[in-house]
Amino acid sequence: MTDPVAAGTVHQVTSLSNPQVKNLRALQMKKHRDETGLFIGEGLKLVTDALEEHWPVDTICYAGAARDQERVLRAAASVKARGGTVLEVTEAILGKITKRENPQMVVGVFRQKLMPLDKVTLAANDVWVALEGVKDPGNLGTVIRTVDSVGARGVILVGDTCDPFSFETVRATMGSLFHVPLVRASVEAFLGFAARSPARLVGTHLSATHDYRTLASSEPTILLMGNEQSGLPPRLAEACDVRAKIPMAGRADSLNLAIATGIMLYELRRDVLTV
Amino acid sequence: MTDPVAAGTVHQVTSLSNPQVKNLRALQMKKHRDETGLFIGEGLKLVTDALEEHWPVDTICYAGAARDQERVLRAAASVKARGGTVLEVTEAILGKITKRENPQMVVGVFRQKLMPLDKVTLAANDVWVALEGVKDPGNLGTVIRTVDSVGARGVILVGDTCDPFSFETVRATMGSLFHVPLVRASVEAFLGFAARSPARLVGTHLSATHDYRTLASSEPTILLMGNEQSGLPPRLAEACDVRAKIPMAGRADSLNLAIATGIMLYELRRDVLTV
Repeated sequence: MTDPVAAGTVHQVTSLSNPQVKNLRALQMKKHRDETGLFIGEGLKLVTDALEEHWPVDTICYAGAARDQERVLRAAASVKARGGTVLEVTEAILGKITKRENPQMVVGVFRQKLMPLDKVTLAANDVWVALEGVKDPGNLGTVIRTVDSVGARGVILVGDTCDPFSFETVRATMGSLFHVPLVRASVEAFLGFAARSPARLVGTHLSATHDYRTLASSEPTILLMGNEQSGLPPRLAEACDVRAKIPMAGRADSLNLAIATGIMLYELRRDVLTV
Repeated sequence: MTDPVAAGTVHQVTSLSNPQVKNLRALQMKKHRDETGLFIGEGLKLVTDALEEHWPVDTICYAGAARDQERVLRAAASVKARGGTVLEVTEAILGKITKRENPQMVVGVFRQKLMPLDKVTLAANDVWVALEGVKDPGNLGTVIRTVDSVGARGVILVGDTCDPFSFETVRATMGSLFHVPLVRASVEAFLGFAARSPARLVGTHLSATHDYRTLASSEPTILLMGNEQSGLPPRLAEACDVRAKIPMAGRADSLNLAIATGIMLYELRRDVLTV
């Protein structure tokens, strides 16, 4: 391969005060992510996942130390070929962009992508997860990863559920962000959608008596999970066709939200999955 | 209630350079936790959980703003009655101790407590979790919370699994740290214990073919889970009586460790739990 810097297809940036670097650093803030429609993902695996999914990649940054790695150069060439920007930067810059002491050698800047609610369809065996008011970015990312693992269809972010494009969420998805369609909807829009949809709406509730072990079914299903502290608000709990309970045997008040979602998802898909 | 500061049972501390404050701040470091045998937990709920469990509480710190709250004073009186120290501090000090911008109003300092491996017994329906080489403190805390929720007996930390008394782990347990016995063991000691124990040793492995949906049983069981990235090392995988698999249907490489542990635990206890 010819040296891409010499060939003029790669920009070398070494100054922390470079305006491009400042823009990338600003993506740590939700405001700047919202304004630009961009977000950051760390690591070559994530960039490769995005390229394989034909996800729009705006920029790839890699450390000079990684410029001899075949897989890095191939990813960079692929970003370039699709009209993206390639930046060779210092490790100090990567550390600043990602707010890490030991940054990954490759960082990607991607375009945010959401699916419109009216494109969500549910056929037999389809499961979607809807999250209302979820606050912890790690929980959201882990739910997206589990949705991918169990072969569910996607995630609807209802109300003021946290930003799926934050660093911590993207990290926790481990690449599944690029495999799982995400939808944003207000509580109103979601309730209207759920009422029109042929799918059953299943919620979990501590006061419910419907045993989660009876839920496996080929019926299209929306699994609705609420906020970490307060669970589903009454209005959403009442909208559910089934309010299910995961039994608690010890002295814990509740399960972690991502754990509860994982247990429900594997239960809903129990009769479909094969090892 | 009489004013406890006036009564001389409470120390007021307002200086960040106070030696007691310095010692508490040092508990952010594992080295200092190991040397002192102490750890920190945030929030009145956690302190109350510890007191209810008769867990040794070394110190309770609360913000001056909370001195009029009946529940805070009751917890402080309880700590005092058991020979502990009560500190009324500033919010700035609480922020420094817990490294938070918006600290909780109450912080407890607790004695570390581990159960010796030879005290672990397994009767019918008993499940213990063993974690080998687990690195993420949030995962460890979430596993401890799930063990509590599902009514499993305790957690064995095998090899260089991370510190259960770190801030992040304690936070993630949501109080279950005080309900779930923890054991530390070398890989050698654990393998000897597992070989002598009447319990079956169940591990998860991506290459396994044993369906996780066949595992529910009254047989005493040790569920062995490996490192987040690499899973169980060959030696531990081979020591398992059963190597089970959780099916993967999408494009994710693996489940989050705490999610996989949660799904396995609810499966192992499937026939025992009641809603």
